[in-house]
Amino acid sequence: MSLGEFDLIARYFTRPVRRAALGIGDDCALLAPGAGMQLAVSSDMLVEGRHFLSTVVPERLGHKALAVNLSDLAACGARPLGFTLALALPRADEVFLEGFARGLFALADAHGIELVGGDTTQGPLNICITAMGEVPVGGALLRSGAQPGDDLYVSGTVGDARLALEVFRGTQQLAGHDFERVREAMERPQPRVALGLALRGIASSAIDVSDGLLGDLGHILRRSGVAAVVEVDAVPRSAVLGAQPLALQRTCTLAGGDDYELLFTAPGPAADRVHGAAREAGIAVTRIGRIEAGQDLRLVDGEGRQVTHTFGSFDHFKA
Amino acid sequence: MSLGEFDLIARYFTRPVRRAALGIGDDCALLAPGAGMQLAVSSDMLVEGRHFLSTVVPERLGHKALAVNLSDLAACGARPLGFTLALALPRADEVFLEGFARGLFALADAHGIELVGGDTTQGPLNICITAMGEVPVGGALLRSGAQPGDDLYVSGTVGDARLALEVFRGTQQLAGHDFERVREAMERPQPRVALGLALRGIASSAIDVSDGLLGDLGHILRRSGVAAVVEVDAVPRSAVLGAQPLALQRTCTLAGGDDYELLFTAPGPAADRVHGAAREAGIAVTRIGRIEAGQDLRLVDGEGRQVTHTFGSFDHFKA
Repeated sequence: MSLGEFDLIARYFTRPVRRAALGIGDDCALLAPGAGMQLAVSSDMLVEGRHFLSTVVPERLGHKALAVNLSDLAACGARPLGFTLALALPRADEVFLEGFARGLFALADAHGIELVGGDTTQGPLNICITAMGEVPVGGALLRSGAQPGDDLYVSGTVGDARLALEVFRGTQQLAGHDFERVREAMERPQPRVALGLALRGIASSAIDVSDGLLGDLGHILRRSGVAAVVEVDAVPRSAVLGAQPLALQRTCTLAGGDDYELLFTAPGPAADRVHGAAREAGIAVTRIGRIEAGQDLRLVDGEGRQVTHTFGSFDHFKA
Repeated sequence: MSLGEFDLIARYFTRPVRRAALGIGDDCALLAPGAGMQLAVSSDMLVEGRHFLSTVVPERLGHKALAVNLSDLAACGARPLGFTLALALPRADEVFLEGFARGLFALADAHGIELVGGDTTQGPLNICITAMGEVPVGGALLRSGAQPGDDLYVSGTVGDARLALEVFRGTQQLAGHDFERVREAMERPQPRVALGLALRGIASSAIDVSDGLLGDLGHILRRSGVAAVVEVDAVPRSAVLGAQPLALQRTCTLAGGDDYELLFTAPGPAADRVHGAAREAGIAVTRIGRIEAGQDLRLVDGEGRQVTHTFGSFDHFKA
C-alpha cells in the first residue's frame, strides 16, 4: 500500500510540540531563542553512496542524519533547539521510514529537541536536515579565534569511521567484533554537544572533524591566520585502529573524515579548564599540538622529527 | 576543469555578510531575530522531474527554489531574514551554477536577505533551501484561525502554472506568446511577502497555494475546524487561462498547484483593510467565497448552483 505525502508526515514525523512555539502542520515552524541569545543554524545534506552506504540500517541513518548537524552546533557551542527535515524517497517505504524515524527521534530525544517542520517528496534518496540552536550573543565558538601559543586539542578518538569505510571498500579486513566497533563509529557518531557547551568561554576556536582532521584544521588556520604543529602519533585512536599498520593509522586519524569529534584550540593556561570541561561533558580530550605564528601546517612524530604528508581534505567533488 | 566543493562554495555562493551576524564559512550561521520577534522557519526540497523540468533554465530554477520558501514565510506574515542552501549536483557544472546563483541572488536581493550557510555535495540534482524570517511573538498568520462568517480571498491569479505543465505534458497547446506567459508563472513565481506582512493583524488565517487551491484550503478548514463555500468562477485567472474551455479553467484554478499565491480569510468588516493591505503590497486580492460552520467544502457557480468536484490535492507520493 502506498502512503501519500500527508499520511506519511502524519504517521512517521508528527509528534506533540513541546519547546517550539509551533511545530509541523503550518507553513512555517516558529522558534524563539532566549533573551540575549543568537540563533545558530546548520544545514547538511546526505546522499546515498556518498555519505552513507545502501547497506546502512535505516535507524542508524536517521541517527546519523541528525548527528552530523548537531555536531555543527556543538562546534559553535550552541544548544540545540530544533530541526527541520526535508526527505526525498524513491517510494514511501514504511520499513525504511519506521526505522529512520526511530533513530532520528532517539537522538532528538537524547538532546531534548524536536522536529519542527520539513518537506517530503518523491525522488532519489536524499536527506537534508537544518538544525537550529542558540548561543549567547558574541559567545559562539568560531573557526577564527586561534592564537599563536594556543594548544590544539581533539575530543574522543578519530579514524575509526575511515577504517570501517576501507573495510567496506575491501581494501582492509577486520575480525567481526572489531569491524562492528569501527562500523558503529561510522554509522552512529555521537555529536559532542555537551563538550561544545562546556567549552564556551574556554576554547579560542573550534570545528567539528567531518572532512578529515588535517583538512578541518586547515579551516581554523586559514580563518585565524595562524600556523600549527601537530604531533601525529599523539592523535587519539581506538584500540582497533591502534593495532593496524602505522601508515594506515596515520591516514585514518589525519585524513579520515566522518569523525564528528571537536577539534579546538585554547590558551596554554586554560588547560585545567579544558580538562574540567571534558570531565563535565563526559568525553576525553587530548592535546595533539600547538598553534604558532605563520601559515604552514607541520607534522612531527613522537621524537619531534618532521613527518611528510600528502593528506588532502575530503572533498565531495574530488573524492 | 572540475571544481572542488570548497572552490565551488567560494566561487558561486560566498558574498559579503550584511544582516546576519555570521554567514558562510563557519560551522553554523548566526542570526538574531529582533526584540519581541519569533523565528519562522520553512524548508522545501526541489527534485528534478517532480518540482521542475530538466528543460528549465538554471536562473529560473535558482529563483524558484528560493521563491517557494519565501512563499511559506509570506503565508505566516514573516519578514525574511536569511536562508541556507543544500545542493546536490551530479557534477560541478559551472554554466548551471552561474545561472542558478544569479537567479537565486536576484530574488534574495529583491527581498534584502542573504545566504547564510549550507552544503554542497555530489549526487542526483536536489535543492534544499531553509528560509528563516521573523514575526512578532503571537503575530504569525496561521492556518488555524478561520472563523465562520469570514470571507475567503486569494491574491493574484491562479492556474497558469498548471496550464503550462499541461502544455509541457502535451495535453494542451498554446500559441508561443501565451505559452511564455504561463511558463513564466510556473518558473518564476513571485512570493507574496509584502502582502503577508501587510495582512498581519487583518487576516484570520493564511496559507500559500502550492498543492492546489482546494487542497490547500482543506488545510485551513481542518486546522480551523470550519467549512467553506467557494464560488468557483470567481477564482481569479489570467486572460490566457480564461480563454480555455471552462473545465480546464476549473481544473487549473482549483487543483493546479505551484501558484504561490496567498489564500487567506478575514472577517467581513475587515474587507476595506484587506484591500488596503493589497494596495500597499501592490497585488490584487479577490474574494472567492466564505467560511461557514461545519466541515465540508462546497463549490458553487455564478448562479449559486452546486458544482460537483473530484479535484484532489497534489500529493508528491500519489501524483
